[in-house]
Amino acid sequence: MTYCVGLMLKAGLVFMSDSRTNAGLDNISTYSKIHHWNVPGERTMTVLSAGNLATTQAVISHLEERLKAPSDRSPSILEASSMFQAATMVGDTLKTVIAKQADVGQRADSTFNATFILGGQIKGAPPRLFLIYPEGNFIEAATDSPFFQIGEMKYGRPILVRGYDADMDFSEAIRLLLVSFDSTVKANLTVAPPFDFHCYQSDSLDLGPQGRIAADDPYFLNISTNWGASLKSALEALPKFEM
Amino acid sequence: MTYCVGLMLKAGLVFMSDSRTNAGLDNISTYSKIHHWNVPGERTMTVLSAGNLATTQAVISHLEERLKAPSDRSPSILEASSMFQAATMVGDTLKTVIAKQADVGQRADSTFNATFILGGQIKGAPPRLFLIYPEGNFIEAATDSPFFQIGEMKYGRPILVRGYDADMDFSEAIRLLLVSFDSTVKANLTVAPPFDFHCYQSDSLDLGPQGRIAADDPYFLNISTNWGASLKSALEALPKFEM
Repeated sequence: MTYCVGLMLKAGLVFMSDSRTNAGLDNISTYSKIHHWNVPGERTMTVLSAGNLATTQAVISHLEERLKAPSDRSPSILEASSMFQAATMVGDTLKTVIAKQADVGQRADSTFNATFILGGQIKGAPPRLFLIYPEGNFIEAATDSPFFQIGEMKYGRPILVRGYDADMDFSEAIRLLLVSFDSTVKANLTVAPPFDFHCYQSDSLDLGPQGRIAADDPYFLNISTNWGASLKSALEALPKFEM
Repeated sequence: MTYCVGLMLKAGLVFMSDSRTNAGLDNISTYSKIHHWNVPGERTMTVLSAGNLATTQAVISHLEERLKAPSDRSPSILEASSMFQAATMVGDTLKTVIAKQADVGQRADSTFNATFILGGQIKGAPPRLFLIYPEGNFIEAATDSPFFQIGEMKYGRPILVRGYDADMDFSEAIRLLLVSFDSTVKANLTVAPPFDFHCYQSDSLDLGPQGRIAADDPYFLNISTNWGASLKSALEALPKFEM
């Protein structure tokens, strides 16, 4: 499994992903699930991926035209005239990669499936955020549904639903996401740090603050340790039930 | 789906269940999922059920010997000499009911499955709490794992993990459970009020405070409305991330 979130804020877009991949409980690895395309001043895009690792890696490789020699590559996603067109390219590539595996060889329900979150901005248009399904179609974030989660989303959803505020700044958003990720990590062995993040500042048309938060990061440990106490205080602020 | 929780506290056992059943999104009903056997001064048992409604109703009916005329019934669960024996009876009945359906007629993965939480006390022994699987076997709550959830458990789990305290009194436990249930209801249409609860006081050997909390219950509305604000305060009590 995996856990990735893309948030749409007034300030821009915030992305976070875990980095655990697994093939069974006894075969776990660490892979980054975040990827960027950046042409400073012109376009910036970030994708997060969940699902079959061979599928998600193949999709990125095809989008980057790694079938060609490095000197011959000219990724068409860097020429897409809109984020909608870019999402269509990711979706079509995803659908093609899955179909190639699913049509021959092993047949197993969902085995080759993957889901992507794509967000970014192309000069002349506002930032946009999409959730792309294994079937290749996609939906876009809107004011009523301003964030997407993929992978193991249930444990971390209630805090996002309650804690999200479009006016948050990036440091508040990272704090919220770390609480959501920590709740998930505490319940599901297939989600684990390090967590990769990227904060895209609207209209900057360049990569914003980004980095990796490790399991022993002092800030993450602080959040993880103190959230329990904070929650208990929050519970105690509610009136007791009268029996 | 369904959401039920059984908590083991120093003060006793607390049970809560939602009451929505569904066969698809367009066919929903309200059924109580809590059932008691009580012989005051001698034994008190409560079961919560999740899964196929025909299976869970059949299990309760068989345990109550409803195949016999009312005057001929003498449910053996009322004669069980220990909670372990009672859990064995529930498990065996469950396994038999599922096997009867699964061996003939429609074959579908998990279609007839159900899971139970059984808790209670028989005079001379301490209160005990069990989680009973469709296969008929079961596990018991312990200090390290002092509560069980069945049904749609993921959304409401993080708050239980962080908020649980063996020293809670019953009114604090109901408050915690309502927050957990509210988080689940907000995310999953197959879980809904009214919520049935029972608080068993250790060594009372009789039914304790019990009741039904409706969707328009003022206390529940208060919890549901204020929990968002409480959570935001809890988040703000954590330090911001330094970009």
